[in-house]
Amino acid sequence: MEKITSRQNTKVKYLAGLHTRKKRKETGEIILEGPNLVREALVSGVDLLEIFVTEEYYQKNNFAAGANVVLVSNEVMDKIAPSRTPQGIVARIKRPDISWREILKENRLLILEGLQDPGNVGTLIRTAAGAGSGGVILLGEGADPYQPKVLRATAGSIFKIPVAEIPKEEKNSFLDELGNHFSLFQARPGEGEDFREIRFPEKSALILGHETRGISPELANISLKTVTIPLEKGIESLNVAAAGAVLLFAMQFQRSS
Amino acid sequence: MEKITSRQNTKVKYLAGLHTRKKRKETGEIILEGPNLVREALVSGVDLLEIFVTEEYYQKNNFAAGANVVLVSNEVMDKIAPSRTPQGIVARIKRPDISWREILKENRLLILEGLQDPGNVGTLIRTAAGAGSGGVILLGEGADPYQPKVLRATAGSIFKIPVAEIPKEEKNSFLDELGNHFSLFQARPGEGEDFREIRFPEKSALILGHETRGISPELANISLKTVTIPLEKGIESLNVAAAGAVLLFAMQFQRSS
Repeated sequence: MEKITSRQNTKVKYLAGLHTRKKRKETGEIILEGPNLVREALVSGVDLLEIFVTEEYYQKNNFAAGANVVLVSNEVMDKIAPSRTPQGIVARIKRPDISWREILKENRLLILEGLQDPGNVGTLIRTAAGAGSGGVILLGEGADPYQPKVLRATAGSIFKIPVAEIPKEEKNSFLDELGNHFSLFQARPGEGEDFREIRFPEKSALILGHETRGISPELANISLKTVTIPLEKGIESLNVAAAGAVLLFAMQFQRSS
Repeated sequence: MEKITSRQNTKVKYLAGLHTRKKRKETGEIILEGPNLVREALVSGVDLLEIFVTEEYYQKNNFAAGANVVLVSNEVMDKIAPSRTPQGIVARIKRPDISWREILKENRLLILEGLQDPGNVGTLIRTAAGAGSGGVILLGEGADPYQPKVLRATAGSIFKIPVAEIPKEEKNSFLDELGNHFSLFQARPGEGEDFREIRFPEKSALILGHETRGISPELANISLKTVTIPLEKGIESLNVAAAGAVLLFAMQFQRSS
């Protein structure tokens, strides 16, 4: 079995590089950290390239010495694991490559535009998966869905629901297709129709915008309905992931009732 | 107007001390950071003790030179502000002191037991406030509701809904009172009754436990109903703050419908 103890090893440098969005884009590869994420990814059939474990993890878990398992020293693990408190296991996998055109064939989508907070993005992907949404689409300059903090917040559910980012140069064609096939609902605090009054058609997309700036003019230009969750007096808004949870399940439960 | 430029100043040391839970308990004082939180606290009538602003913040915002305004250097602000990227304004206020006995007079409560993640605790307090819950009660060894990250996640709503922590020595009497007056609903992934089938009585409390360990045996011993949100196959659970949002609004909307 391969064993790496030097932080100067070429492979170690390559893996540390995958901590940046740029390298993940260039290589089409991403890093997963921790037993939960790695397990969820494996049972979801992702394209596993290599698994790196510390000696301690290997022995404690009676880890099988597969062809693609590499033993690493604690120092190396500290360098390749994205978090500050590594859990002894990291996997390198192919970044899932799902076309937005495929996702537009599904019903009930979640569209996030420019959402910055990795915890919110990850939680929303997890909620969409739990609510049975057809897919999640990320628009604009938001958090990379495959960055470590987003992955952790999805608790692995990102491998169980189709997720796609829209490249800048495809934004216009995406918006055309979206507008042609979906009824769009933009959630806004304190503005729009009470979501409980709305009958969501089968092909509906819920749009959540940037935490403070909201959605872009291009997106706002498509015909869309504004929906809102009525809040207690004096409270201006909910956290975007909390609002998304209420709305995604409302869309889902209408369908099943 | 008072001006502080030395990080060795006694007041500066005192304020930096308030970054710890222990000192906040001892002194009954807390620190708020950033214009949004400070503004929300002020309009909610908290007991303001002092406001600290940098020269830059003071001038940019045409800040009024009140008797309790202290100018500080950037170095001092870096030390007294809890975050790594201070926004130029910090307030010292009295920690709100709300008795759990008062909260038990309200309807529709949220009870958090041992929740660790500050973002989840803050988001849940914000959601409870938005949904019009009667109050939030924190049990067990969870995150301090007045720590900086929780405060930020509440977006100031913590000053608009009664929140109380249960001291260890009062846990038994609290649980007695709670069980006597409320119908209790514990949320669990994949177990219990579909929440849409439940008629929540006026005096209902939703209980959310530790992210992985769930609720304590003492709490489980009180007669309670387990409720669940039906999830898509293959998805085991939601983020606790997302699940809380769905359930708190379900409780609220039943009441108003």
